[in-house]
Amino acid sequence: MARTKAKEVAMERRDSRTILFDATAALLSERSTIEVSLSEIAQRSGLNSALIKYYFGSKEGLLLALLERVAERSMADLSSLVAMDISAEQKLRIHIGGIINTYYRSPYVNRLINYMIVRGDTTSSEKVAKIFVEPMVAAYRAIVDQGVADGAFRPMDPGMLYYSVVGACEHIFYAGYSLPTTLGLSELTEQVRQQYVQHVLDLVFHGVLARPNTAA
Amino acid sequence: MARTKAKEVAMERRDSRTILFDATAALLSERSTIEVSLSEIAQRSGLNSALIKYYFGSKEGLLLALLERVAERSMADLSSLVAMDISAEQKLRIHIGGIINTYYRSPYVNRLINYMIVRGDTTSSEKVAKIFVEPMVAAYRAIVDQGVADGAFRPMDPGMLYYSVVGACEHIFYAGYSLPTTLGLSELTEQVRQQYVQHVLDLVFHGVLARPNTAA
Repeated sequence: MARTKAKEVAMERRDSRTILFDATAALLSERSTIEVSLSEIAQRSGLNSALIKYYFGSKEGLLLALLERVAERSMADLSSLVAMDISAEQKLRIHIGGIINTYYRSPYVNRLINYMIVRGDTTSSEKVAKIFVEPMVAAYRAIVDQGVADGAFRPMDPGMLYYSVVGACEHIFYAGYSLPTTLGLSELTEQVRQQYVQHVLDLVFHGVLARPNTAA
Repeated sequence: MARTKAKEVAMERRDSRTILFDATAALLSERSTIEVSLSEIAQRSGLNSALIKYYFGSKEGLLLALLERVAERSMADLSSLVAMDISAEQKLRIHIGGIINTYYRSPYVNRLINYMIVRGDTTSSEKVAKIFVEPMVAAYRAIVDQGVADGAFRPMDPGMLYYSVVGACEHIFYAGYSLPTTLGLSELTEQVRQQYVQHVLDLVFHGVLARPNTAA
């Protein structure tokens, strides 16, 4: 009886947390900043804002927990990708498409990471490094090792490749305010997303130079 | 007499502004966040904090004006580079080294841009687009046009090249909190800066693939 009760409490807790995550993600997706208040989250979720404080300590705690949930899923996908029996080039291609798609679908993730870092709070920065950067760099190391061993890639520092590739993928989302100036668009469309994936793949695999057989 | 007086006032005004800019830049360079208070700026500059409000309206106004000053200089350099009688490849190489060096010397610039955008204030975002993005994209367009016309570059969207190159150059500075994880360093050294410039140049000009003559 006591065990059933404990189970119920645990399930209820999980459900409330999920409802709060979903409400927060929905609110953040709708706006272009991370300015969302506890009372807005409470209203959208239909749950009491005291519950947020109970589960997460504060709004920042909720945002960090939301980021951890997103990271958990993305990093599980990345780890499956690395373990697949395909070439290093295919892995890097799929990964690049994956980063751009994740940012396209959930632009708030990027803003949330930036917010955690710009706040300059060491605990949040370290947490972000732990949940996003560590598994990413491990994946880059494995992919570069495989590609170099196969003779497909030139030798590179995997940490530097991580910075340059992630930076190339994400800046367009981070700097969304600049879209009218750069691409003459008010927002990123699905078509532009696809073109950008192709642009980054071309850059990362071939660079900017004309290929010998296409050069004039 | 009245004209001399007016001139003196104008010079004094310029001096006070410069002193405030220098004090703010020094404070921002010393710390890893943009958290700097009016009273700290006042203390460092030896000027009254009322003067900051008088000249810039607020701390945000001072930070934006500082960013404008940095932009003015960098964009003048970029525009001279574009006008030079050298190949498009040389221009892009010099530009990439220049971005990385600017961020290395003044890491606060990057944080300041991020801060202006994360705040989600449309006026600041538009200002940043105006002072940084517009001249940058114009330069990318000119360089890509030249390179494609010469047969050196493959055709590319200059706006997309702007996002991918700037993103690749800046992420290592923006994500400085992750250096211990990625490169095993506590901070960026001059040697690593040079290696990173080379890494980005190799990536942008040749991509990750082994060259035919170096492949096993």
